[in-house]
Amino acid sequence: MDTTRSLTICEPDDFHVHLRRGAMLHNVLPHTAEHFARALVMPNTDPPILTAEDVVAYEEEILSACSGRYRGYFEPLMTIQIVPQTTPAQVKAADRAGAVAGKIYPRGVTTNSQNGVMNYQALAPVFQAMQDYGMVLSLHGESPDPEVFCLDREAVFLETLNWIAEHFPGLRIVLEHVTTAAAVKVVLDLPENVAATVTVHHLILTLDDVVGGKLKPHYFCKPLAKRPEDRAAIVQAALNGNPKFFLGTDSAPHSRQAKECAACSAGIFTAPVALPMLAEFFNGHHALDKLEDFTSVFGANFYGLPSNTDTLTLALNEDAGQAAEVPAEYGGVVPFTYGSGHLTWSVVHDA
Amino acid sequence: MDTTRSLTICEPDDFHVHLRRGAMLHNVLPHTAEHFARALVMPNTDPPILTAEDVVAYEEEILSACSGRYRGYFEPLMTIQIVPQTTPAQVKAADRAGAVAGKIYPRGVTTNSQNGVMNYQALAPVFQAMQDYGMVLSLHGESPDPEVFCLDREAVFLETLNWIAEHFPGLRIVLEHVTTAAAVKVVLDLPENVAATVTVHHLILTLDDVVGGKLKPHYFCKPLAKRPEDRAAIVQAALNGNPKFFLGTDSAPHSRQAKECAACSAGIFTAPVALPMLAEFFNGHHALDKLEDFTSVFGANFYGLPSNTDTLTLALNEDAGQAAEVPAEYGGVVPFTYGSGHLTWSVVHDA
Repeated sequence: MDTTRSLTICEPDDFHVHLRRGAMLHNVLPHTAEHFARALVMPNTDPPILTAEDVVAYEEEILSACSGRYRGYFEPLMTIQIVPQTTPAQVKAADRAGAVAGKIYPRGVTTNSQNGVMNYQALAPVFQAMQDYGMVLSLHGESPDPEVFCLDREAVFLETLNWIAEHFPGLRIVLEHVTTAAAVKVVLDLPENVAATVTVHHLILTLDDVVGGKLKPHYFCKPLAKRPEDRAAIVQAALNGNPKFFLGTDSAPHSRQAKECAACSAGIFTAPVALPMLAEFFNGHHALDKLEDFTSVFGANFYGLPSNTDTLTLALNEDAGQAAEVPAEYGGVVPFTYGSGHLTWSVVHDA
Repeated sequence: MDTTRSLTICEPDDFHVHLRRGAMLHNVLPHTAEHFARALVMPNTDPPILTAEDVVAYEEEILSACSGRYRGYFEPLMTIQIVPQTTPAQVKAADRAGAVAGKIYPRGVTTNSQNGVMNYQALAPVFQAMQDYGMVLSLHGESPDPEVFCLDREAVFLETLNWIAEHFPGLRIVLEHVTTAAAVKVVLDLPENVAATVTVHHLILTLDDVVGGKLKPHYFCKPLAKRPEDRAAIVQAALNGNPKFFLGTDSAPHSRQAKECAACSAGIFTAPVALPMLAEFFNGHHALDKLEDFTSVFGANFYGLPSNTDTLTLALNEDAGQAAEVPAEYGGVVPFTYGSGHLTWSVVHDA
């Protein structure tokens, strides 16, 4: 019988988050800043973050939105979006402006990706520059070929991942939000400069949860949750304590109206529930001892960042009643698992 | 170059339709009665149609809802739902009350299926009675096992179909709304007492249309649209002029609120657009000569019904402009393809 009731860990980082801009940024940022010391902020805002100037402006917007007790404690890790027009000079300038990663979206596969990439080989000079400057390449790993069936897009993309890894052996590459057993295997097989982020929702969902009963827009994301055997491979990757796999929530807020409609946007808002759910998940797999590496160590190590100095405690709720219910919404954004469960763990900030 | 501009066919039948009851019945019935001489009316209403008495009451409700020019022209083909409690005596009574088919839903897989079947073998006495009385067995062909992944449910169900067909060789069986290449093959391989219905939407959609871009609740149905190679097999089955495959639209109305929400009901409302879309589809495949068999001959023959005596003409619109746009809704129900296309063919009733 597992009697663990609390766990104190080095403050976590979220190596994949969508914070948006403007009013939505102010709405969602506190939920990331509440639980994470740092977060890799995705650049597919509207307009996107493409240049050093964009990075500086967006970072300022985020820091000025860090009000009250988060000011000075939360650190956004900035990125640029690599688009077909990106130049090596832009990579150099973004690196000097503090961007730690360049993110590629395949064209047309997810939110704000109409400016995405079709031809990865054509970006070889950009990859070379990223390797030279030590900027991480962050990949939404789905084929942009519209002929590729939705459930095959990640597997087909693995050829591209292999091509990049082969040609740029000094480039650090993160395959974001892995969803298939095939992707887990390729990441395991590639050298240690290739890693992957794992989301909370892909540890929990399969496509059954999205379309197997009623259709659930709040469980809809890209890449789609896949088959049970795919989820099993991701779960093992997260639990096995392999430094190639670390947390990137891909928390992606959309208004309720953009989700519960005739054409629902892809994205699941997990920021406020990610850590409590991970504690429950790892505890349920008798692997709480692996949680800190997954949330707070492996990602920072891969990115070459120092460890966070503060700690945070996760505690099993004594009373799994009303207080632990997932709120219906946060400023019009419906969080992951609202309506279907309770949070059995809580985050307690250490003094 | 195909210059066919119109086609006159024997009036079609729809061998699978959901008409509901009450206000929704009055809303949707005209759209089926406008284009179809007869329709096999599904029994999973709320409450369901389980007995001879239910059949008589529901038939009266439908006929009294047949107002104006449809009165006396539209014939509902009545069904009962076979549930675990159904008895051979109930089958006999329903047959005498005019029910032509008994429909089985696997438990829990679609709208109003909480009373569905888990154990098909236990229904052997009912199948025997249906065979004896000549009642068609209509199957929603998905496994009720909650452990079976959503995309595998039809393929897993084929074992059950094979078992029933083997043990009741004189029972006419319809595998409704086929969605997989595997199901098409099994139906082709089984004797001529086993047939299948094909919906309009499964000729057109794959899962890509439901979840591959934005999530589209109005394209969400059970069984789910599957892979491109599955759709290709269904298309070939419909176009090949094989009498085992005929039209059953599975037109299934839900209010816009029941579709555009956090837990969307399964079902696509195709009744008003089914025939124009089929004309465009068969014409696009240079197979207009196969349309009448698919819509008006094979189904009636399988069910042992006389041919309809009136005709109906499908005409290519001379002007593919405003007039052919799919309406946004019919009494609060959003029709198939609203917002994404125009109807290039129209139904013209012959004098």
